[in-house]
Amino acid sequence: MMGSAVWAGVLPLDEVRAIGDRSGITVGDELDRLGWAGAAAFGKPLGAYLELHIEQGPILEASGSSIGVVTGVQGIRWFRVTIEGFPAHAGTTPMDRRHDPARPVAETLSGIYELAAAHAPQVRLTPAMFSSEPVSSNTVPAHITFTIDMRHPDAETLENLDSTLRSLVADAADAHGCGHRIEVINDCAPVVFDPRCVGAVEAAAQHCGFAHERIGSGAGHDACHVALRAPAGMIFVPCQDGLSHNEAESIEPDAASRGAEVLLHAALDLAGTA
Amino acid sequence: MMGSAVWAGVLPLDEVRAIGDRSGITVGDELDRLGWAGAAAFGKPLGAYLELHIEQGPILEASGSSIGVVTGVQGIRWFRVTIEGFPAHAGTTPMDRRHDPARPVAETLSGIYELAAAHAPQVRLTPAMFSSEPVSSNTVPAHITFTIDMRHPDAETLENLDSTLRSLVADAADAHGCGHRIEVINDCAPVVFDPRCVGAVEAAAQHCGFAHERIGSGAGHDACHVALRAPAGMIFVPCQDGLSHNEAESIEPDAASRGAEVLLHAALDLAGTA
Repeated sequence: MMGSAVWAGVLPLDEVRAIGDRSGITVGDELDRLGWAGAAAFGKPLGAYLELHIEQGPILEASGSSIGVVTGVQGIRWFRVTIEGFPAHAGTTPMDRRHDPARPVAETLSGIYELAAAHAPQVRLTPAMFSSEPVSSNTVPAHITFTIDMRHPDAETLENLDSTLRSLVADAADAHGCGHRIEVINDCAPVVFDPRCVGAVEAAAQHCGFAHERIGSGAGHDACHVALRAPAGMIFVPCQDGLSHNEAESIEPDAASRGAEVLLHAALDLAGTA
Repeated sequence: MMGSAVWAGVLPLDEVRAIGDRSGITVGDELDRLGWAGAAAFGKPLGAYLELHIEQGPILEASGSSIGVVTGVQGIRWFRVTIEGFPAHAGTTPMDRRHDPARPVAETLSGIYELAAAHAPQVRLTPAMFSSEPVSSNTVPAHITFTIDMRHPDAETLENLDSTLRSLVADAADAHGCGHRIEVINDCAPVVFDPRCVGAVEAAAQHCGFAHERIGSGAGHDACHVALRAPAGMIFVPCQDGLSHNEAESIEPDAASRGAEVLLHAALDLAGTA
């Protein structure tokens, strides 16, 4: 989604070129090496933009629909949470004299799953990327860090979830004599796709005689960025077991073919040549 | 404690020589490089062994004692716990279709602190070394790993704590459709020091006129290994704020001096020349 973010003006080109992987290689270095960092102007304005993608989730497969008519993308906010304790000897330091960051982590995680239950089924809350220092099993950790991926299709609910999460972390840390830091490392507002694009996808699925349903996207896509500058929409096709971000991700050739057919007809429709 | 473990026959020499640090340098390589891997026979038998050490905890400082007459060392068991989930997309996978290892981790941690409260004040339970894979904030983790340092002076209680911990982990993992693995990565039985050595330390503190008290050790020491082969005892001196395994660890020169004086008199006593 880096290219579409630069195209839409969401991120500056220089900032994206400077992003590095864990070995220090940057996007800009690789674009230069591959000869892909051309000077060609971006193609604006666009009449409309359509994106075909696997659902990356289990909804279409479960309902037997061949085509998902995507109505929008849920809002996404990523947090990096650090609970700061005080390193101390695991054998000699009495339990009640510790500033043990694992205690607030336990309470924060429990609170997160309560929050998820209270906002079911639309909310997504995913703690990940756990790490702690020092790398020593007989020392109370100095700090524990983890990320939280928070998603909801409604902007106001996302704000409320954000506030509740911050209170959860602060209260848990305070209760156990620990400090805390919360950084927002990614923030994408919910996107509602252009009604004309959504309608064109729906009409195309209808025209092709494919079972279809309206669906919201749980994942971010280039269409989210493009939607800021031009009418945009998306077509989903089902994937096996709703699996994505996993090497076992797989779809049927027929599913791809049906998706391409809908894309063609929707594009012709939007171009006024259907 | 590697040297004393080899001396006492707790660990084979080859095994200890093969232990490497995170950069791959082994104990054996470094002993050879420094010329310290001599062929001299170990000095056995010993009449008695005394070890002088900082307490690494806050008890002596809090009570105003200059000398801790160490009666033994609590049992220590280290576990590496892995909760196995199933990696899936953080945005598209409904919360109730996940095998999210962070849920059992939260419940296990909560259970650990309940267990600590139920066995206060002697038990020590320290979760540490948290990590998870993949290193991706928008994927439900494939697994989360952490260690638990468990200590108690009573061998039977330590066994009970071990069983309860295993049930906690298994129940939490099962409840959320996750797998689990528990490895014991260190296991030291509780040690009770030789009454003659303990008595000699106590008499020496008395003789020197230093405020003293009997105390159990929360940390492992060479004396634990030596105690398997010869009468052993220890002398503790207070350290600032009970702080250890932390760069701010500090003691007063006077505290060291008093410890050395007690060591001298206890050694003379045990040698029959006091």
